[in-house]
Amino acid sequence: PSFKLLLLPGDGIGPEVMAEVKRLLAWFEKRGIAAFDYDERLVGGSSYDADGVAITDSTMDLAHAADAVLFGAVGGPKWDGVPYEVRPEAGLLRLRKDLGLFANLRPAICYPALAESSSLKRDLVEGLDIMIVRELTGGVYFGEPKTITDLGNGQKRAIDSQVYDTYEIERIARVAFDLARKRRNKVTSTEKRNVMKSGVLWNEVVTAVHKREYPDVELEHQLADACGMQLVRRPKQFDVIVCDNLFGDMLSDIAAMLTGSLGMLPSASLGEANPATGKRKAMYEPVHGSAPDIAGKGLANPLAMIGSFGMALRYSFNLSDAADLLDQATANVLAKGLRTGDIAAPGQATVGTTAMGDAILAELDAL
Amino acid sequence: PSFKLLLLPGDGIGPEVMAEVKRLLAWFEKRGIAAFDYDERLVGGSSYDADGVAITDSTMDLAHAADAVLFGAVGGPKWDGVPYEVRPEAGLLRLRKDLGLFANLRPAICYPALAESSSLKRDLVEGLDIMIVRELTGGVYFGEPKTITDLGNGQKRAIDSQVYDTYEIERIARVAFDLARKRRNKVTSTEKRNVMKSGVLWNEVVTAVHKREYPDVELEHQLADACGMQLVRRPKQFDVIVCDNLFGDMLSDIAAMLTGSLGMLPSASLGEANPATGKRKAMYEPVHGSAPDIAGKGLANPLAMIGSFGMALRYSFNLSDAADLLDQATANVLAKGLRTGDIAAPGQATVGTTAMGDAILAELDAL
Ligand SMILES: CC(C)[C@H](C(=O)O)[C@@H](O)C(=O)O
Ligand SMILES: CC(C)[C@H](C(=O)O)[C@@H](O)C(=O)O
Repeated sequence: PSFKLLLLPGDGIGPEVMAEVKRLLAWFEKRGIAAFDYDERLVGGSSYDADGVAITDSTMDLAHAADAVLFGAVGGPKWDGVPYEVRPEAGLLRLRKDLGLFANLRPAICYPALAESSSLKRDLVEGLDIMIVRELTGGVYFGEPKTITDLGNGQKRAIDSQVYDTYEIERIARVAFDLARKRRNKVTSTEKRNVMKSGVLWNEVVTAVHKREYPDVELEHQLADACGMQLVRRPKQFDVIVCDNLFGDMLSDIAAMLTGSLGMLPSASLGEANPATGKRKAMYEPVHGSAPDIAGKGLANPLAMIGSFGMALRYSFNLSDAADLLDQATANVLAKGLRTGDIAAPGQATVGTTAMGDAILAELDAL
Repeated sequence: PSFKLLLLPGDGIGPEVMAEVKRLLAWFEKRGIAAFDYDERLVGGSSYDADGVAITDSTMDLAHAADAVLFGAVGGPKWDGVPYEVRPEAGLLRLRKDLGLFANLRPAICYPALAESSSLKRDLVEGLDIMIVRELTGGVYFGEPKTITDLGNGQKRAIDSQVYDTYEIERIARVAFDLARKRRNKVTSTEKRNVMKSGVLWNEVVTAVHKREYPDVELEHQLADACGMQLVRRPKQFDVIVCDNLFGDMLSDIAAMLTGSLGMLPSASLGEANPATGKRKAMYEPVHGSAPDIAGKGLANPLAMIGSFGMALRYSFNLSDAADLLDQATANVLAKGLRTGDIAAPGQATVGTTAMGDAILAELDAL
């Protein structure tokens, strides 16, 4: 099979980790597993520097035409002062919104070899495997009005709007319940129904979808603040967590940090299935950011970006054998003790980005 | 001196922990340290059951007239189905809003004797002492519109509005900077300026207040999701964290859970100082909730409620010696190994609510 990809390395360490994925694309082609036809474009601060916007219309056209977008990371202090509309993050948000990528899947997995690098006690996180399902095209990220108004007298008023419609909650709930059925069959839905009307509607719609379509799945409701606490206290109680865009941003980062493996964690952002072809628009990106402090030094951990490509193999290309192969290579490399700085125990020897990529390729050759 | 108090025990374990404060009031009177004239009223679910609202107008009148309100906790599954306007939390929110309690101080302190009950590794939390300053009368909690509308076709639309004006951000920033000056002189301001206009304004106003009035205090900005991560990863980097109402809800609960001492943590909610008298409206409440699962069993930890009374001694009654005395009694009781269930190490003997109160009184007698 042959696939069209758009690579958007972005800023900071983005290009460095994307370089390792390009070597993987070549490996899978050479092995005859799949052929990849790819374009590479700017996004974020680097796009702003070149073209004055965080993503160009022609890059958006390529994104629409691709079978999958692979995204690195955007942002950095260099662009702190740029106008709001063209800040680096605007490129990412436009991709999510215009491609309709409403379902953000963020696995938080604690690799046994890395349990020690968690700040939590080992027994609380060892074997942790949570899937956070975050709504990605609605809520306070995109609701209107979203304004700053000058009121005179040195006063301004800022407004952001959290807006959710029934169908937006229904479709993300279905994604969560479908995933739970293939996992440990439990969904925790989280909101702030005690202070937010959107929380009231969220709770009502998830409950209704559950009753009507997924009575076999265990459903529990937690307030978002309580869920944050429980993630820190006893994370293994969770299987799938479903939440809105903003709570998902906070909770998925916290869950990621618990694992001690932030530099390891991939994510997938999926659109609705095309009724004719069954295909979904999709973008894959690491959970970590652009890490400006280590950018350009060859120190970044490429495994989250590589894992994101693995999710593309699985969810977009239907190549789960190839995805398994890649996961196995990663597990082997970790078991052999290879560590980039972010996942090394104190005193443990570390390798750089390219050496980690080399090791993955060597494992793939050996498998 | 003599003070007027309003006690609002609320639901669940609220009345049990408030009972221990009442014994303290008597002790301080007997010792001649202060006289307390107090009323006790219903709030939350128990008020709804009795009067059909989460707080009555006459109780609000008493709150306005009091030197301080002591609040227990509200809510529980019993009231899950009640109409939104009269749900238990509405009583708490009305108190905050109508009394103008814009500044919520939530210390997250890890008691050395309790470091082991944290889910984090001991060295990361031992000695932890963070002050979270949460804006409490604005943002998405109170912004309008806040509605659910029927769109027909089985679709509803929920809207919540995050609204902040310059003056609201200025006054909470000042509270944070003033506190930092008496502590380790560092403020971390957190928002999501990369996606929210209110985050842009928040950042701008805090930066301006800092530059104009507090250049001697160290100021750092963190995105709210990054701040959540850093709390889990390396909490001791923080001194004072200042944030909006919703981020403050999430971050303060996470910080509280880190300490392993949730049942220990008090909070203060303060209004603006009266220009004539210098007095502030104030309410004091534990950070923990109503814990319906253990309510009525005599198992609740009263120390957060007692500590909240301690904050009242300090911030409302200007009795810092008395507050120090109470803090010392608490430290002694913990050092002697007394533990309620929530703070006991596995296998450690536990005591109930009243026995913990007895022990505090015995320490006070001995001091
Ligand atoms: C970069 C930023 C806009 C983004 C978000 O807030 O969604 C990031 O934090 C994420 O979680 O993907
Ligand atoms: C009970 C609830 C309304 C409240 C809040 O969300 O503010 C609580 O979680 C808190 O933090 O005091």
